[in-house]
Amino acid sequence: MTRSLLHQLAAALGDGAVLTEPDDLASYVTDWTGAISGTTMAVVRPADTAGVAAAVRLCAESGVAVVPQGGNTGLAGGATPDAAYENVVLSLSRMRRVRDVDAVADTITVDAGVVLADLQDAAHAANRLFPLSLGSEGSCTVGGIVSTNAGGTSVLRYGMMRDLVLGLEVVLPDGRVWDGLRPLRKDNTGYDLKQLFIGAEGTLGVVTAAVLRLLPDVPRRATALLALPDVGCAVAMLPLLRTHTGGLLTAWELINREALGLVLTHLPGARDPFGTPHAWYGLVELAGGSEDVEGLLESALEAAVERELVVDAVVAGSRTQRAALWALREGISEAQRIGGASIKHDVTLPIAELAEFVAEIGDLLDEVLPGVRRVTYGHVGDGNLHYNLSAPPSGDAALRASAPDLTRRVYDAVAGRGGSISAEHGLGSLKREAAASYKSDVEIDLMRSVKQALDPRGLMNPGKVVP
Amino acid sequence: MTRSLLHQLAAALGDGAVLTEPDDLASYVTDWTGAISGTTMAVVRPADTAGVAAAVRLCAESGVAVVPQGGNTGLAGGATPDAAYENVVLSLSRMRRVRDVDAVADTITVDAGVVLADLQDAAHAANRLFPLSLGSEGSCTVGGIVSTNAGGTSVLRYGMMRDLVLGLEVVLPDGRVWDGLRPLRKDNTGYDLKQLFIGAEGTLGVVTAAVLRLLPDVPRRATALLALPDVGCAVAMLPLLRTHTGGLLTAWELINREALGLVLTHLPGARDPFGTPHAWYGLVELAGGSEDVEGLLESALEAAVERELVVDAVVAGSRTQRAALWALREGISEAQRIGGASIKHDVTLPIAELAEFVAEIGDLLDEVLPGVRRVTYGHVGDGNLHYNLSAPPSGDAALRASAPDLTRRVYDAVAGRGGSISAEHGLGSLKREAAASYKSDVEIDLMRSVKQALDPRGLMNPGKVVP
Repeated sequence: MTRSLLHQLAAALGDGAVLTEPDDLASYVTDWTGAISGTTMAVVRPADTAGVAAAVRLCAESGVAVVPQGGNTGLAGGATPDAAYENVVLSLSRMRRVRDVDAVADTITVDAGVVLADLQDAAHAANRLFPLSLGSEGSCTVGGIVSTNAGGTSVLRYGMMRDLVLGLEVVLPDGRVWDGLRPLRKDNTGYDLKQLFIGAEGTLGVVTAAVLRLLPDVPRRATALLALPDVGCAVAMLPLLRTHTGGLLTAWELINREALGLVLTHLPGARDPFGTPHAWYGLVELAGGSEDVEGLLESALEAAVERELVVDAVVAGSRTQRAALWALREGISEAQRIGGASIKHDVTLPIAELAEFVAEIGDLLDEVLPGVRRVTYGHVGDGNLHYNLSAPPSGDAALRASAPDLTRRVYDAVAGRGGSISAEHGLGSLKREAAASYKSDVEIDLMRSVKQALDPRGLMNPGKVVP
Repeated sequence: MTRSLLHQLAAALGDGAVLTEPDDLASYVTDWTGAISGTTMAVVRPADTAGVAAAVRLCAESGVAVVPQGGNTGLAGGATPDAAYENVVLSLSRMRRVRDVDAVADTITVDAGVVLADLQDAAHAANRLFPLSLGSEGSCTVGGIVSTNAGGTSVLRYGMMRDLVLGLEVVLPDGRVWDGLRPLRKDNTGYDLKQLFIGAEGTLGVVTAAVLRLLPDVPRRATALLALPDVGCAVAMLPLLRTHTGGLLTAWELINREALGLVLTHLPGARDPFGTPHAWYGLVELAGGSEDVEGLLESALEAAVERELVVDAVVAGSRTQRAALWALREGISEAQRIGGASIKHDVTLPIAELAEFVAEIGDLLDEVLPGVRRVTYGHVGDGNLHYNLSAPPSGDAALRASAPDLTRRVYDAVAGRGGSISAEHGLGSLKREAAASYKSDVEIDLMRSVKQALDPRGLMNPGKVVP
């Protein structure tokens, strides 16, 4: 059976599109963190939608599971095969065509394998903006960011990937192609089928192309790092910033001292812009076309100082200074990796609950592992915290031993306050069961009904998302 | 069976919540245009979600269909029962509670029966904006605008209803309640189930409450009526307006002379702001907080005149003048009703196709009915035209006789250019089969799979949406 399927795949796609040598497979069966790994009989790399359809159909006929994979940058194991050899990894990485850019309709149509940074560049070349921006943008692909409904640092203004998708082309689990590549802003002719596939992490079909929204470019930026007394002030800043800056507020990011300290210790060239340490920091950015973003930011900061929400501020005076401020925020993940063992949590809370959550959870974690270090940062404007933990003085082994208990405490506290245990990373295999434990039976039934309706044989990315 | 169900409903909801007298039923079994009518055994009006759940469960146990109804302002018969008596109309009109307004998180939680205008007022009272705005806002309800994914005049800036929904509470076809009333901006813990129910026109469940986004209020408005040589200029204005006005462009509406003429003829007090007639008009509006909307509009208009996209312009100099300009746009529907028989088409086209569509379709319709009057207006910024027809000099009877042929020509032309035959009105019973005739087998299969998965017995709003 296996050999026969591999021959059929090679005949349909060409020999070069079917990888079976262990050396060739290695990078596809392990996620980029190295923590999640599986096995596969083959990686197939079709050149176009017809090739994807042929591969999926052949796998379906053989009853072999398909694991769709984009840039393999996910953080929840959604694109990694499991330990069962009976699957085919379907890589979209050869499908890198920008099919169309329409500067009147403000749309761009791209293959699923187009890298986010290339998509941003194509928009820019048409004097437009594709606003989604995240750490892995040099590697992650359109199919992956659609399938995980990715977020990032400009969600506050522009929404998540779901908000930027106008149409999709999807290969269904039986190999048929659904052509929903419509560029329309308004279309209410029945169920909005594209919504099914956005955020489904490849469990209902394979996204092969997308029509995406473009926006007016916003070349003028005003950026500042603020020193804040506490998380409550960061939360109170949100309506203040919105009121003073109209629709131009693009980022409102939170960083605690632990996180900034890691960056200052481990990343070369990082420098504390303030003379003394502060408990919390906020990174604010406005972006506009012709608007006076500097003036608006200044007036917002004056109001914030007057209300004692901000104790100090550094406004970027140049492009270089702006880059340096963002490097402090964007370097946290890398600094934490260098700094030793860590545990990542990507959670959302109702914004009004953020401050109390942070106050409460610290003590709860100290009960489990005294001195565990809270590396807290994230997109406070969206209620989204990367509530990560690093090893205490007692060391990495202690952190690893306590990890399940620590994570359970974080998730319990988040769920208890009406939050979400996956804000923008999805569930994949890593969080599937944890998420289910906080869902109602009704919700789990609904998810299973949808899965059963679209993929009755359970061959699309098994073991992911659906409990 | 019928009598037993009615007794059970009265016992569960109270006598006053179950209407069965013909006089009481009349307004619920006919749509507001009077064109679509059906029959029902009863109208039930629960006071809360538990009551809705009880009613739906009792109907399911008896195998009786449920027709959910909000303000009964739909234009496609989505909330009207069909001719079969074996159904219960479930009116959400008693559920009018604003459950919560959160000005920090910018969210509002409301019952499904809350009228859109009351929702706007509640937002306004909290110094916030709920941006959806449409002609029937004094009557239409949250459940209805969620279920039809309603649009209106500010979609260009704020999106359709789908874009404003954060969470839903839904009674499923078996009477269970799905509590998805989460106020979170980011939540990727599995399939985004609320998307299933938005725009499903009550065929998958009954929306009983929603958490909606609020936005910063934009009290400053700059509004102008422009005289345009043709539709191509209206399309070319869109990127120009976007570039000159940043994110402040809220409306860009198109009106042809025929439409304005109807308003000037039939509506008391309507006055042509220009000295001479023009072929086309555009209504533009910017809205902002502290921004100089007047200055931005002026600079945009200067650029438009220079590029010969605009031949004349009237800028509103006061609140009264602004209202007068909008009355010309918003009066079209009423003026057309007074003016005699008409046929409505609510279509979207790819924006780049709009001008050619309008040029082509006129001749095609004249072949069917010489002199038929094209009353063309709509949300050109979204590619959405209300491409209505009024009777030619040969009279109303001729228009009615030709209506199926005329509509088929309009829809064929729209579909041929990659458009949609329902932009913002949904399918209901009126457009269900027409829409299906333009869909691929794959798409129809997918819609049926979803319907089957959530409502396997087909008891939720039968005869609507799904072919």
